[in-house]
Amino acid sequence: MPADHVTLVGGFWGERQAVNAQMSIRHCLDWMEGTGWIANFDRTARGEGPERAGREFADSEIYKLLEAMAWESARTGGVELEETFVALSRRVLAAQCDDGYLNTRFGGPGQPARYSDLEWGHELYCAGHLIQAGVARARTVGLDDEFVHGVLRVADHVVREFGEGGRDAIDGHPEIEPALSELARVTGDDRYLHQAAIFVERHGRGLLSTGEAEAAYFQDEVPVREGQVFAGHAVRAMYLAAGAIDVAVDTGDDELLQAVERQWEQTLARRTYLTGGMGSRHDWESFGDDFELPSDRAYSETCAAIGSVMVGWRLLLATGEERHADQIERALFNVVAAAPDSSGTAFFYVNPLQRRVPGVPALLDRPSPRAASSQRAPWFEVSCCPTNTARTLASLAGYVASTDDSGIRIHQFAPAEIATTLRDGSPIRLHVTTEYPLDGLVSVEVLDAPDREWTLTLRIPAWAEGTASVDASGEITMSGSAARVRGRLKAGDVVRLTLPVEPRITIPDSRIDAVRGTIAVEAGPLVYCLESVDLPEGADLLTVAVDTSTLPVRNDGDVVTIQAELPDAVHDHTWAYGSTAPDLVRHPLALDLIPYHRWAERGPSTMRVWIPERTGR
Amino acid sequence: MPADHVTLVGGFWGERQAVNAQMSIRHCLDWMEGTGWIANFDRTARGEGPERAGREFADSEIYKLLEAMAWESARTGGVELEETFVALSRRVLAAQCDDGYLNTRFGGPGQPARYSDLEWGHELYCAGHLIQAGVARARTVGLDDEFVHGVLRVADHVVREFGEGGRDAIDGHPEIEPALSELARVTGDDRYLHQAAIFVERHGRGLLSTGEAEAAYFQDEVPVREGQVFAGHAVRAMYLAAGAIDVAVDTGDDELLQAVERQWEQTLARRTYLTGGMGSRHDWESFGDDFELPSDRAYSETCAAIGSVMVGWRLLLATGEERHADQIERALFNVVAAAPDSSGTAFFYVNPLQRRVPGVPALLDRPSPRAASSQRAPWFEVSCCPTNTARTLASLAGYVASTDDSGIRIHQFAPAEIATTLRDGSPIRLHVTTEYPLDGLVSVEVLDAPDREWTLTLRIPAWAEGTASVDASGEITMSGSAARVRGRLKAGDVVRLTLPVEPRITIPDSRIDAVRGTIAVEAGPLVYCLESVDLPEGADLLTVAVDTSTLPVRNDGDVVTIQAELPDAVHDHTWAYGSTAPDLVRHPLALDLIPYHRWAERGPSTMRVWIPERTGR
Repeated sequence: MPADHVTLVGGFWGERQAVNAQMSIRHCLDWMEGTGWIANFDRTARGEGPERAGREFADSEIYKLLEAMAWESARTGGVELEETFVALSRRVLAAQCDDGYLNTRFGGPGQPARYSDLEWGHELYCAGHLIQAGVARARTVGLDDEFVHGVLRVADHVVREFGEGGRDAIDGHPEIEPALSELARVTGDDRYLHQAAIFVERHGRGLLSTGEAEAAYFQDEVPVREGQVFAGHAVRAMYLAAGAIDVAVDTGDDELLQAVERQWEQTLARRTYLTGGMGSRHDWESFGDDFELPSDRAYSETCAAIGSVMVGWRLLLATGEERHADQIERALFNVVAAAPDSSGTAFFYVNPLQRRVPGVPALLDRPSPRAASSQRAPWFEVSCCPTNTARTLASLAGYVASTDDSGIRIHQFAPAEIATTLRDGSPIRLHVTTEYPLDGLVSVEVLDAPDREWTLTLRIPAWAEGTASVDASGEITMSGSAARVRGRLKAGDVVRLTLPVEPRITIPDSRIDAVRGTIAVEAGPLVYCLESVDLPEGADLLTVAVDTSTLPVRNDGDVVTIQAELPDAVHDHTWAYGSTAPDLVRHPLALDLIPYHRWAERGPSTMRVWIPERTGR
Repeated sequence: MPADHVTLVGGFWGERQAVNAQMSIRHCLDWMEGTGWIANFDRTARGEGPERAGREFADSEIYKLLEAMAWESARTGGVELEETFVALSRRVLAAQCDDGYLNTRFGGPGQPARYSDLEWGHELYCAGHLIQAGVARARTVGLDDEFVHGVLRVADHVVREFGEGGRDAIDGHPEIEPALSELARVTGDDRYLHQAAIFVERHGRGLLSTGEAEAAYFQDEVPVREGQVFAGHAVRAMYLAAGAIDVAVDTGDDELLQAVERQWEQTLARRTYLTGGMGSRHDWESFGDDFELPSDRAYSETCAAIGSVMVGWRLLLATGEERHADQIERALFNVVAAAPDSSGTAFFYVNPLQRRVPGVPALLDRPSPRAASSQRAPWFEVSCCPTNTARTLASLAGYVASTDDSGIRIHQFAPAEIATTLRDGSPIRLHVTTEYPLDGLVSVEVLDAPDREWTLTLRIPAWAEGTASVDASGEITMSGSAARVRGRLKAGDVVRLTLPVEPRITIPDSRIDAVRGTIAVEAGPLVYCLESVDLPEGADLLTVAVDTSTLPVRNDGDVVTIQAELPDAVHDHTWAYGSTAPDLVRHPLALDLIPYHRWAERGPSTMRVWIPERTGR
């Protein structure tokens, strides 16, 4: 569905889009000017070198911001943002070589040669993000655009350099694969799709030198179509999977599609956090083994969640199965929404489900190490997450709805105006109103529709299967992850979906050792957490136990209250193990939980999502 | 007690000493010749450079092996080993500069300048291990030795370079601190002690540039005397603590001693694995936060356990409190004994308490990445553990006994001959026989003793407090961690200590989230584990539950049998979390556990120490 066919109107996500537009984009721009990352392009344009600011992939942050600005400029039509986009994109393109190559770290005077460090140089990764920015621009203003022209020259260079007969190589960080696939769609030029397919197939053949890394880190251990579960660096795995689905769909390669779907399903069943976060290890920012899902050392990088949104969306479109949108919703509400603070100027890079120590505030005057602080930081040395969040929020309306042969589908629930055309060309307009996720009623009013039978499909999240209800005048079919309303729905008709968003207790698979004997509280798509600032003075979050015989209740706004117990005092032993447990005197009390996405906004604190159940000891 | 006053005679440790002497020392020597690490010294001696094999700290491995050979040569008096020691030590000293400096990576033609990278260069760390080798040599053959002379020149260089008025600096990896302290003792030269004290005090003042590391990594965040708990890189923390205790004892600095003891006790109560292993994170090989003790991602580096033996031993001697020897025993039986395989030619670098995947066999033809394989590896790129194990096993008899004003103490239980002098100069000879740890009877026969009252003190491990018994003719006092027998014990008298080594169930502190709802089995000092090769065909180690209503029983040799349950089948869900647990049909069965120290000797396997308890779900 074209970018401007869905408009978010306030609500949970509309408000975040506004903060992103008004605060985050400018914030990212200021930091990248301040750190000299943008000036890298000016230096390359002037033929200077080899000095350069930032890490080897700094260019990509400018590209992701350009993508965010392209979406946002089209969404709001602001003149100032459009001018900023044009000015920044010109500074970028001024650094482009005659043959289309564009990178501020390689190939310049005194710099390493182009493609001399494919493992760690991130040249094609950067090119991929530049192409994604070009795709956003092409989708919003069309192909006849100065920036898009420059981007096409980059893509043509990549095809010449890495096509058949060219370098038999891949980049250490996937991203060029989905980028080229999307560029093929927007341009209709199959050379880009073909090149994306080449890159996808080259993975898993050991083309990259591993050094201290393992081949799985780069997704270079097993060919994509032979993989069983996602492994290695979580962001890399998601980006490659997204590209592989694109290639599979556009080349009709069912085997490849099924291979990715198989890995996705294994990953959801065994390697994904309750929040939708992915990546269990700080070490190499990677997936862990099956059921290795520690709360405290969860990496759950913001960018990996964004990557999982990309993958889930593609699988949803490729298979038509609404259940793939569950992960999109989970990752958006519990990772992407958690990353920026309410001001849109500080971000989480890692999103653990437990913090044991309050830690120190983030650095304010310079970039923070990526996973060091337990507080949101304005900028990072590796600052992929802020700009990634910005481009995701700016393009969020794209994940709300799609059309199919029977009519239209709504995948994500948010107040929105939808004005598009069905596949037969007939116009349709819908108005969605809801207080979701705090309220479970989603009303879809028909404003305009064809004068024939058509189907409105609404996703039923897994947690609502069997308990969701639909009130509508047409024929209603509830089947697993979808509710279908078929009928001659006309202007003024309202379809009402009711989802049970009251708080519920969730238990983990018994094979997840890290959270055995604990429960979590969810309400609708929201994962809840207990933050130390909501404990009585002096209480230790490590000694709280929850009484699950009493159900959690919604309290004030989005706050949920549970019944819990705290010991009167806990005395350390000299050794942490023994034959008997201490005989603690516990007292009951009610404790407030907040949605995970808004923790750490009240100063340094500790936090946990999974709370131990009260037991005999 | 001088090195030759205790001789281990077979038994658990005597056998390991023999394998170390016959296999491991030669194995290390061969690998270091093969990798060119020893040849680095030849190149430096010839003034060549800057090419060099191995990592920046490779010199230290040769030094640790020299230390192992020095102890071993004295222990067994073998001519061949002595000749090998002399030849290798001459190759090392041939690379020494006129001013005493000795390092193959810095200061040579084309190499970085001396002390130009104190954070990561490991120059003083290497010097420290060279000095430790010199201390071993001095303690076994005396100060008038060609190698000892070279070592003293190194130490004198360090004192000149880093003393008052010299460089105000520390090394990124402690080791010089305990080394100089020990050298001061063996030489009687207080300059070395003074220099060790200077280094200890300089920690925690931010003298090192951190880059991506945190200052805590280097123990440079908090001064030693202000620390509350050990933090950062576990091996570094242990080595610095050992040096700090040495300085505290030899300068009469009670505040410093108490500061280290406080950190030690907090670390045992909150940051140590059941095995005695330390270091919860692969990331930076570091301690985690309090109670962050994951089984699967336990780093528990072999060298950190050896460091904890060094610290425990020093605190035992400094305070006279036997409980400090509990950690020595725990780390020796469950980490140091686990590191080498039974052939003494393959080693564990990390010692997790759970392995989720069998993993791939280690590399046999080249060094392995340090924590990559789940199997023991013959050599590592960072190969600190094999040589560290070798020097520890070769000097193990030193941890068995000590004298005090009242008589003699036995801290570790092993078949041994002890022939030493009490503090009043009177000779004493004891013969210890025991099948420990499989049998709890430790018999100490007096072979020779002064004709007056004296005291034999025997450590009571914490797990035996209240249940240990002593049979002897003298006056017996049981007090916490010590049993004291006072009397006119004479030749032919036998003191019998009986420790309850039958299998027992151990539960963790409820604040250790990673092992909530599980139990471990121990027997005496041995931690047990369940290895997948002992499961029925097709069974999944992740689904085993233990029935704790039946006590574990000793079976055949060191094998222990528990009553457990396995589900008939486990089906994956599409999502790892839900509102209800699957209704599994479980069947009971008996399962064999083996001592942790001998797991992974039967091919690739999975393993767990902490086993879930059977619960309602």
